[in-house]
Amino acid sequence: MDALQEAATACVGCDCDEELAGGEAAAGGAMEAAVRALLVGLGEDHRREGLRRTPKRVAKAFRDGTRGYKQNVKDIVQGALFPERGVDKNTGSAGGTGGQVVVRDIDHFSYCESCLLPFSIRCHVGYVPSGGRVVGLSKLSRVADVFAKRFQSPQRIANEVCSALHASIQPAGVAVAMQCWHIPLPENMKCKSSQIWIRTSHSSRSGVFEGENSSLWNDFLALVKLRGIDMEMDSHSAILPWCPLTPHDEVPPCNGHAKGATNGSTSPRSGSTPSSMVSAVSSMILSLGEDPLRKELVVSPQRYVQWLMRFRACNIDVKWNGFTLNRPGEAATDHGAIKSEMHLPFCAQCEHHLLPFYGVVHIGYFGNGDGKGIDRSSFQALVNFYGCKLQVQERMTRQIAEAVYTISRRGSIVVVEANHICMISRGVEKIRSSTATIAVLGHFLTDSCAKASFLQNIIPNITHGGNMMEL
Amino acid sequence: MDALQEAATACVGCDCDEELAGGEAAAGGAMEAAVRALLVGLGEDHRREGLRRTPKRVAKAFRDGTRGYKQNVKDIVQGALFPERGVDKNTGSAGGTGGQVVVRDIDHFSYCESCLLPFSIRCHVGYVPSGGRVVGLSKLSRVADVFAKRFQSPQRIANEVCSALHASIQPAGVAVAMQCWHIPLPENMKCKSSQIWIRTSHSSRSGVFEGENSSLWNDFLALVKLRGIDMEMDSHSAILPWCPLTPHDEVPPCNGHAKGATNGSTSPRSGSTPSSMVSAVSSMILSLGEDPLRKELVVSPQRYVQWLMRFRACNIDVKWNGFTLNRPGEAATDHGAIKSEMHLPFCAQCEHHLLPFYGVVHIGYFGNGDGKGIDRSSFQALVNFYGCKLQVQERMTRQIAEAVYTISRRGSIVVVEANHICMISRGVEKIRSSTATIAVLGHFLTDSCAKASFLQNIIPNITHGGNMMEL
Repeated sequence: MDALQEAATACVGCDCDEELAGGEAAAGGAMEAAVRALLVGLGEDHRREGLRRTPKRVAKAFRDGTRGYKQNVKDIVQGALFPERGVDKNTGSAGGTGGQVVVRDIDHFSYCESCLLPFSIRCHVGYVPSGGRVVGLSKLSRVADVFAKRFQSPQRIANEVCSALHASIQPAGVAVAMQCWHIPLPENMKCKSSQIWIRTSHSSRSGVFEGENSSLWNDFLALVKLRGIDMEMDSHSAILPWCPLTPHDEVPPCNGHAKGATNGSTSPRSGSTPSSMVSAVSSMILSLGEDPLRKELVVSPQRYVQWLMRFRACNIDVKWNGFTLNRPGEAATDHGAIKSEMHLPFCAQCEHHLLPFYGVVHIGYFGNGDGKGIDRSSFQALVNFYGCKLQVQERMTRQIAEAVYTISRRGSIVVVEANHICMISRGVEKIRSSTATIAVLGHFLTDSCAKASFLQNIIPNITHGGNMMEL
Repeated sequence: MDALQEAATACVGCDCDEELAGGEAAAGGAMEAAVRALLVGLGEDHRREGLRRTPKRVAKAFRDGTRGYKQNVKDIVQGALFPERGVDKNTGSAGGTGGQVVVRDIDHFSYCESCLLPFSIRCHVGYVPSGGRVVGLSKLSRVADVFAKRFQSPQRIANEVCSALHASIQPAGVAVAMQCWHIPLPENMKCKSSQIWIRTSHSSRSGVFEGENSSLWNDFLALVKLRGIDMEMDSHSAILPWCPLTPHDEVPPCNGHAKGATNGSTSPRSGSTPSSMVSAVSSMILSLGEDPLRKELVVSPQRYVQWLMRFRACNIDVKWNGFTLNRPGEAATDHGAIKSEMHLPFCAQCEHHLLPFYGVVHIGYFGNGDGKGIDRSSFQALVNFYGCKLQVQERMTRQIAEAVYTISRRGSIVVVEANHICMISRGVEKIRSSTATIAVLGHFLTDSCAKASFLQNIIPNITHGGNMMEL
């Protein structure tokens, strides 16, 4: 079997530079064959350069991303429990007997069991030591990771982390609070992308944290609030479905609360979930050691394929003929001769990893001197056309610039800013990283003032900038 | 050799759960013996529970943190170069021929070659593709990591990343901009800890980015600026020594610029660098495959030992006798009967990893009804006393609470908020995580209103809170 042999070979230079042996190689081969079936179903040539190693990369990402199935909490915590004196019980609570310890803002990612896409987690874990023992702080993060790295729902992770820590540390109690962010459907991506992420907050508690009026639970919430996170306010928000690929009526009742924007338009395009692709995804779940018949996972392959099929190859070409030129005064922002349309949202699928990358496109061009411009909706249609497929950011930037150039022959400039889920999940895990690409055509190439003027007019996003070393 | 055999054994449950073989085990054994020598030099009993596995942990952290010496850039980039069409050269620059690609906000950590302490890096890497080939985005981060994971200076990392990417990708040019943060001396820790980190900005460029008026370099700066980072403004700030353990007159001239607060008081306490400890550190550098005689490293073991000796064990006990009670009206913030002193800065040394943890202490207590309180400088002295040693945060919190309780028998409450370098560096790398601990003694235990009032009066730090999913 070619696929099997290929999988068993070290993959130098790629993220997947590891040797697989025996059963793992067979599972890896099955995974890769399944990914190839998905690529074929998407209308792609899986042998073309950009996709040639995609099956290997996707298989590795899923394997790493679900490594929690093979990990054992006892192995992690054992050996990291330290005797630590506490105060006299009559005096109060501190140290090894009763003092609360909270590690806040632990970032992880997990896989949504409803649709198999990665989602982001910010986790806050507290516990009250008992028996004069404290646990090494990093273990709270490592135990959370064991349960994050599975096919999960936010509430289940919170519950499982709480139970596992309680059983392994044997403290007086454990408190877990989590904020999770799920990628929305591409059509729900709005200009200010931070507003449309589907966010949910969940918590779980044991021992002394339990009960309506637990003083320790209130302390935990207060200590988390010092990081700007109000779990109580979060839990008062409306209950909405968490996974945008799960129709409202399909959502099982849950203990947590979700807030965010979804429009519920989750019906697949007709005929968009070929059974060969669905079977391929089921076989991937099986290869990862999960049960594809577990009730939360039964429909997931279909939803994952529905998601992928939004990015299927199409051979139509974009035409500018139908695009309307709007009236003077209604044109896009006009800086002298330079017109621009900023912050056009998009969501594409990275062809190297079959994972979304999303962000905004900024377009500049020289007007024709008649004050007329191209309207925003036409640009958005253009961005959607080039964005909604298996892509790389560099190519998408060039394609949009070239398309704009066909009607503005004096010059076009395009900047794309994107977050790549493949840079957040997988081994690299650079969650704050953001990629910018730029294409410059025509006069913008020689007119450095025009280019600088366009770049200066992009409104920066500075929420992530500045000093990283604050407490 | 016991140490050697111990190092060759798998360390279940710890972060260092790996087998070492042959030469590596010998090097690991030497490393651990060196760390034990440091502990002895610090006046500690290296066999006590909290320190028993410290040599193993420290050795592993140094090994992982300098793994870059064993990595090869070609292995990383090879296989991740993708053919990508560009535009016609006469039209402009985009895609595989000339379009600029910038990955911004890549977080790493490195080791300062002057003092061997870890420092944080935020890296921005751009390149202009050439020859119709683009590189996988994650490789820009992985290559940066190869050079970060060594004993380094910020400028050298920037130069090495730039050269290595240029040689391996063969683009039209490479641009690297880096912001770095070095931990200050404990005595320079101020209330607002973000203001006292020593920050430096460096850059390096090759090919089309070179030259005074490189248009591509200006584009790179503009794209980085969209993340709120002004490299030009950074480079106009004053030149100061980067490593606070390096006296001014010892600093070699460098190409980059540093800004931040240092007071230059870097002279070691007399007799504070025992030669046995210095030799032990030199042997660690050798074990890691570096040359302890490289000119930038010659004095580093001495500086590292100077740093460690700031946290040496002392057997004196803190006495409240000498502390002045201030006059009414000058008391600490007074919320009815509850008095509080917030945001007292500290820098301690984690006894599990020999790495600093730093942050702020908030103290609350019941006054004696005479309107008098304890002045801030007395509390700061108390915090310094318990903070400046090999510690764990849980113990420090308890000790401060107990000390305050000795003079305010009605009750004391202490919250410590800290960033642990051992959670930022090492394998766990949760750079945003922050740990809060709380100790509650006396009336605060039963008076939940008093406790809640104290907690509500802590001013939250919300720079890191909120939504993580913005572009």
